[in-house]
Amino acid sequence: MVDPRFFRLAGPYRLGELADIAGASLGAGADPDRVLTGVAPLDEAGPGEVSFLDNRRYVDSFAATKAGACIVAPELAKKAPAGTALLLTDKPYRGYALVARAFYPEPSPGEERHPTAVVDPTARIGTGCRIEAGAVIAARVEIAPHCSIGSNAVIDEGVVIGEGTVIGPNASLSHCIIGRRCRLHAGVCIGNRGFGFAMDPDGYVDVPQLGRVIVEDDVEIGANSTVDRGAGPDTVIGAGSKIDNLVQLGHNVRLGRGCVLVSQSGIAGSTRLGDYVVAAAQAGVAGHLTIGTGAHLAAKCGIMRDMPPGQRVAGIPAMPIKEFFRLCTIWQRQLKARGKSGE
Amino acid sequence: MVDPRFFRLAGPYRLGELADIAGASLGAGADPDRVLTGVAPLDEAGPGEVSFLDNRRYVDSFAATKAGACIVAPELAKKAPAGTALLLTDKPYRGYALVARAFYPEPSPGEERHPTAVVDPTARIGTGCRIEAGAVIAARVEIAPHCSIGSNAVIDEGVVIGEGTVIGPNASLSHCIIGRRCRLHAGVCIGNRGFGFAMDPDGYVDVPQLGRVIVEDDVEIGANSTVDRGAGPDTVIGAGSKIDNLVQLGHNVRLGRGCVLVSQSGIAGSTRLGDYVVAAAQAGVAGHLTIGTGAHLAAKCGIMRDMPPGQRVAGIPAMPIKEFFRLCTIWQRQLKARGKSGE
Amino acid sequence: MVDPRFFRLAGPYRLGELADIAGASLGAGADPDRVLTGVAPLDEAGPGEVSFLDNRRYVDSFAATKAGACIVAPELAKKAPAGTALLLTDKPYRGYALVARAFYPEPSPGEERHPTAVVDPTARIGTGCRIEAGAVIAARVEIAPHCSIGSNAVIDEGVVIGEGTVIGPNASLSHCIIGRRCRLHAGVCIGNRGFGFAMDPDGYVDVPQLGRVIVEDDVEIGANSTVDRGAGPDTVIGAGSKIDNLVQLGHNVRLGRGCVLVSQSGIAGSTRLGDYVVAAAQAGVAGHLTIGTGAHLAAKCGIMRDMPPGQRVAGIPAMPIKEFFRLCTIWQRQLKARGKSGE
Repeated sequence: MVDPRFFRLAGPYRLGELADIAGASLGAGADPDRVLTGVAPLDEAGPGEVSFLDNRRYVDSFAATKAGACIVAPELAKKAPAGTALLLTDKPYRGYALVARAFYPEPSPGEERHPTAVVDPTARIGTGCRIEAGAVIAARVEIAPHCSIGSNAVIDEGVVIGEGTVIGPNASLSHCIIGRRCRLHAGVCIGNRGFGFAMDPDGYVDVPQLGRVIVEDDVEIGANSTVDRGAGPDTVIGAGSKIDNLVQLGHNVRLGRGCVLVSQSGIAGSTRLGDYVVAAAQAGVAGHLTIGTGAHLAAKCGIMRDMPPGQRVAGIPAMPIKEFFRLCTIWQRQLKARGKSGE
Repeated sequence: MVDPRFFRLAGPYRLGELADIAGASLGAGADPDRVLTGVAPLDEAGPGEVSFLDNRRYVDSFAATKAGACIVAPELAKKAPAGTALLLTDKPYRGYALVARAFYPEPSPGEERHPTAVVDPTARIGTGCRIEAGAVIAARVEIAPHCSIGSNAVIDEGVVIGEGTVIGPNASLSHCIIGRRCRLHAGVCIGNRGFGFAMDPDGYVDVPQLGRVIVEDDVEIGANSTVDRGAGPDTVIGAGSKIDNLVQLGHNVRLGRGCVLVSQSGIAGSTRLGDYVVAAAQAGVAGHLTIGTGAHLAAKCGIMRDMPPGQRVAGIPAMPIKEFFRLCTIWQRQLKARGKSGE
Repeated sequence: MVDPRFFRLAGPYRLGELADIAGASLGAGADPDRVLTGVAPLDEAGPGEVSFLDNRRYVDSFAATKAGACIVAPELAKKAPAGTALLLTDKPYRGYALVARAFYPEPSPGEERHPTAVVDPTARIGTGCRIEAGAVIAARVEIAPHCSIGSNAVIDEGVVIGEGTVIGPNASLSHCIIGRRCRLHAGVCIGNRGFGFAMDPDGYVDVPQLGRVIVEDDVEIGANSTVDRGAGPDTVIGAGSKIDNLVQLGHNVRLGRGCVLVSQSGIAGSTRLGDYVVAAAQAGVAGHLTIGTGAHLAAKCGIMRDMPPGQRVAGIPAMPIKEFFRLCTIWQRQLKARGKSGE
């Protein structure tokens, strides 16, 4: 049950419309005029609702579902219960995403400038922007049309924000150029000075951090994540990258397109990631490394060397994931051997 | 020395009163009318102050203390110095907590609505609430009596907060129902959209996150921790759970009652913890797992499988803690053997 | 190219002036009246710009640079290209830091109290302070001259801030005494109650946290880091320490002078670090330990025991770093042996 306090329902939709939305075809015998009113998980959905099956673990729930319609891969269609119309696609999770977005469209911000927002007279704000209560927009900031700046967010001098971007409450942005359709969640800190100083017996000497943060289009950055600005070059987050909560990116880091950094992972200064690199939760990458396109870093791994494209690694220090699993097996044998010897 | 800038002293109390407060009995010869004026550590306390001994490591400090009274377990009473009256209890740390709270009661917020707070006319605020400067309370929020909302905190549309709950400064809450007597510290982010998207060659497709965060009664959440809302089901934090700073909970996570998550630990999406599970600092639990009641996860461990109730684990990947310590011993031997062979 | 949106250029300077600033001597034949207008990396710098060489990996870039001047160690002077004047020093990175600061001086805040800032009448604000929009300064706060308090930062009752300190936007400070010339970045949370409670079958009993956070002079604390106040003693950060983003310090932790804690590292309650301890990224130190002066903790290591001064450790649990690397070699051999045996 989706809570109407927080989400506004659109629709209803006919099954035929939903097939178009999901990029799916109708299963045998499905009535394209059947009306559906919402989405729900397999085991909660009723005859008016659409569900989906993406993970084979849940095939039993699928076979028993009372959902009016279900988005599913063609090869699992035969497991469907009698009353459930099928929407067939090779990408059922993507299909579900599109259908759920149709029923619960992202609310469009609506133009508003709250009277308690502080907007410097030299800032330029596009049409259709929403500036919430207590937000602070400093001098020479440029915000393109249809952006939303959350309550008490702080946008420091000279920052540029592209069209349709959403900045969460209590976020802090400085020294950065943000692309279009980005979503920076609550509490993110972008553009702080990097961690750069010269050692000296009389005290550390700060090295001016003269770069920026460039966030390309369609990037998502999770709550309370931090991205430092470059020391001289820029820190760059490639288009379409997805960054989870509490992630750290050091100065001069460069992410390619479509990278995925899961929560509490960190990339140290001057490291470059190719496209579509995935770093699972709590993974860490040392500084000044090059990580190839499509590399996959297991949760908690520690990367100390360059990585070729497409490699999957795990462990501290990281090694190819198959080696890591073999090493785990070796450890288990050593433990058993020692157990047997009576120690 | 407790700094009066930050803490206000109550009392004084007679020893007999303190025994009642601590749930302790008076030691032999203790004068119930002796007056005490504060608390202090064993090695700093004077004749007017109460101290406590909980950890046997500090028995020498106990034997030498000048404290007027000391909360201690009965079996250690014989080590007490002559001038110190004893408050005997099997739970001296709990006893100290209660006595210290009597001397330094949590300040009651006091009703106030700061003129710079922004409260939507459709929000309902109970009696005795304190809304600090710059706080933003959006449409249809419901706040029960005797809550405190810190400066510049942002409470988004429809959020519900139970009686006596305290929200810290710069916190951001959305899509959540918060219980009674909770304490959410500075900078926490609750209710952000979970990290859910479908892969696609044309770009990731965001999956609407249609659940909420349910925080039950008496929960504490530390500074800058993040809790994502559910994808469809809710994310749930069981009653009495204690969450430290910089902790991450993914979408659909469910904690039972009284769980303890120490700082920088993280629980990935859809994982369920039973009651009284303890995750030490920087521990990580993968997604879609079930962790049994009373399980104990050592600092930095990485959990990749379900865990039965009561198990204690350590390591990456996690194993029973005794095995982990044995494995460490095996490594030490291998290192020594290699050292001897002259390599 | 330094972006003038974000950084304001000073100068130009004559080469002789820059030698004085950098603490360097002029190379043979260098004209002290040559005029320089900015800084740039070796491979981007032109005849009007100063660059530097600190890492021998970049000697080839040095040999090919078109920079008008370069800061370099004397032993590398012979690799310089003909047109580049040299500034010779044993500490070229420090020299560069000083020269870059001359060209891009930290902007001086400039006295201002934004009309939307909320300053309690009992707070005392020194001359030359900048209080930005939406900042909240509570009762009895004392702020020395020439401080800057960022937008929407919250400074709670009784906090004391020393001369020339900068507090970032959306930071939250309570129960703390901050030294001179400190820099606390966006989103930091200082002074929250520590994670202290007594276990009890009827629910955890919170132990009042009656200490403070003492931040000595010249400390830097990165974005979204958290420092809990002491339980009775204080939490102390020694002078000149550098703390990166998303770092956690528990209650009663004491850092000596000049400690460096890299991002996502954490120090558990009551642990003491000597002077100049370095904890690399994602390192963790258990509670109640003593870490000697000059100790070096590798990234991701887990410290479970006291450490003598100057020791370098790595691994979970931590061991001397040479042992850790030997252990990695042993693992690699075991993997190879197993591979050969056909498993």
